[in-house]
Amino acid sequence: MKITRPTLVLDIDRCQENIDRISSRNRSKEILFRPHFKTHQSNEIGQWFKQRGVRQISVSSVSMARYFADHGWKDILIAIPFNIRELDELKSFPEDVLIHCAIDKVEIIESISAGVQRPVGIYIEMDDGYHRTGLGLDSLKEIENILQIIHDNKYLSFTGYFTHSGKTYQTRNKREIQDIYERSVKMLEQIQFRFSKYFPDAIISVSDTPSMSVLDDLGPGNFIFYDLMQHQLGSCSINDIALAVACPVISKNKERLEIVIYGGAVHLSKEFLPFQNYPKVFGLVCPFGEKGWGEPFEGTCVVSLSQEHGIIKTNKKVYHQIKLGDVVAILPVHSCLTANLYSFYFAMQTQKKIFKFQSH
Amino acid sequence: MKITRPTLVLDIDRCQENIDRISSRNRSKEILFRPHFKTHQSNEIGQWFKQRGVRQISVSSVSMARYFADHGWKDILIAIPFNIRELDELKSFPEDVLIHCAIDKVEIIESISAGVQRPVGIYIEMDDGYHRTGLGLDSLKEIENILQIIHDNKYLSFTGYFTHSGKTYQTRNKREIQDIYERSVKMLEQIQFRFSKYFPDAIISVSDTPSMSVLDDLGPGNFIFYDLMQHQLGSCSINDIALAVACPVISKNKERLEIVIYGGAVHLSKEFLPFQNYPKVFGLVCPFGEKGWGEPFEGTCVVSLSQEHGIIKTNKKVYHQIKLGDVVAILPVHSCLTANLYSFYFAMQTQKKIFKFQSH
Repeated sequence: MKITRPTLVLDIDRCQENIDRISSRNRSKEILFRPHFKTHQSNEIGQWFKQRGVRQISVSSVSMARYFADHGWKDILIAIPFNIRELDELKSFPEDVLIHCAIDKVEIIESISAGVQRPVGIYIEMDDGYHRTGLGLDSLKEIENILQIIHDNKYLSFTGYFTHSGKTYQTRNKREIQDIYERSVKMLEQIQFRFSKYFPDAIISVSDTPSMSVLDDLGPGNFIFYDLMQHQLGSCSINDIALAVACPVISKNKERLEIVIYGGAVHLSKEFLPFQNYPKVFGLVCPFGEKGWGEPFEGTCVVSLSQEHGIIKTNKKVYHQIKLGDVVAILPVHSCLTANLYSFYFAMQTQKKIFKFQSH
Repeated sequence: MKITRPTLVLDIDRCQENIDRISSRNRSKEILFRPHFKTHQSNEIGQWFKQRGVRQISVSSVSMARYFADHGWKDILIAIPFNIRELDELKSFPEDVLIHCAIDKVEIIESISAGVQRPVGIYIEMDDGYHRTGLGLDSLKEIENILQIIHDNKYLSFTGYFTHSGKTYQTRNKREIQDIYERSVKMLEQIQFRFSKYFPDAIISVSDTPSMSVLDDLGPGNFIFYDLMQHQLGSCSINDIALAVACPVISKNKERLEIVIYGGAVHLSKEFLPFQNYPKVFGLVCPFGEKGWGEPFEGTCVVSLSQEHGIIKTNKKVYHQIKLGDVVAILPVHSCLTANLYSFYFAMQTQKKIFKFQSH
């Protein structure tokens, strides 16, 4: 395929290496590995996990669960608080697919309990300090009520406790990540122990990409593609990033040492991070060829985005290297959001499209 | 349609009133009105313009031009610097469709001139100080070269000069917008005058939403939906906003006075603005019912977004008004980016889906 407009490009080798690294880690530790499929949202990439023995997955919406169930997955956690307006959709999954719902409110488990006559697994979502969703250790009464409802309903089974450990995204070094992770595990162990006589087999799960990749621990996510955010957190090297957006160069300005690409907010997402001297960087810029992309050009960043085009600031040397009509590869800040904007990945090694779920 | 998950909802009445207001303004002034279709990207909404006499439109990509050409539009400006990698696509438009390309580089018009044997209109994009794309008044030689190439090629016709007047997005009041607008017009008039003996019919066009709506002037864009960004600039009232995202409520936290919605970065986009005491607000929250949405709840904002869910901060009163399983409407910060995430609008008045272009 000739790249004529912004295209989501995938380095299959890097991606599979990333999957290998994390899935072998998890296997050796005999920890339940339930990777999050919200990042790639693709059946074909999902199969790479299946080939490595994965049978249990996480997703972030009922419709995404449906997509993967339709592709043969039988054990799926919908890892955000269950949306009671989709109770009918929950009921309509085939009998042989076990869906796990995340619960942090008694009212929601009551509605599921009253409305569902098919097996459903329940995870209780715990809040480890990120204060987004989940119950804290100060909510023992509420947790007990939820467990009671599960216990009393023959269709519901209790799977365990999980937390997103999302706080690690706000940290900047491995030591902090380690501390937060350990606190999260401790909290989950406490709660597991507290109710262990009723549910001795309840599992615990700390699921967050930075903790996961740095600390060899169970979790979902973004480790298969990585991105600049992960790189800045120290979770990956720049050469582990398996995803980029290939963008044609459409204009240049010599005085300002700027390069304009066809590739804007609708191709990269508005996620940014501070980098070097720039308060907002929307991507790093790499040379791009038929076989893939190279290491980022020095001092060369996407510093602003319109709807369809982006401005790159660079230095004199790189300015002259990049020509009108060239294609450059942009490493994304947050690969989940970038991938979400496309209906397919273009795989560099096979030169083929890998299609994915589209939610809306 | 029962709202079960995040849904892009459209108030047709408001939208058509917005179109009426702007298109009647422009007609009375006998100014060429070339509305930008990048915001709505929908054939059905495009027809509302056609019913009001519009025949000339702007879009932001070759593929979007193709979508509207396929739906019968015959005069289309692709309003970003032309991407030379899509020269074959440019050649493949039907003969009776006049495509205008935006040019700010001699090399690009050279390539078009060498490669195209069909009529193409050319706009020269001028830079009025936004420093994103376009040529400045210090580039007379380059402009002259471009005009010479157009003049010498029988397939190319010169349409005129345009500027995005994008600087107005960085301003905060009408006075500033007026000033920038006047400077832009003056610059375009200067350049038009400079080469008027060769191209006496060249038109000038200042195209930017804030200038346009505040100042009754020609331009593209976002005036059909509006959004919080436009509202903050003083371009519209909160009741002119014609677009929202309907989101189910999936969790609540009484201590923190927080409400969690199913509706995240993939449903709203990561665009934010400062509002009241919050540095980052991703949307305002309104009551939602079968007939549409009401005015925003006081002191109630979406303050953080994950991939699929969002956190609303509110006050005690509103906290108790909004219940688990309710649907709320979120007014978007930047409606172009939000609309881009969906394949259809759900029209409140007709309860029908209005489909739109999907680029990737």
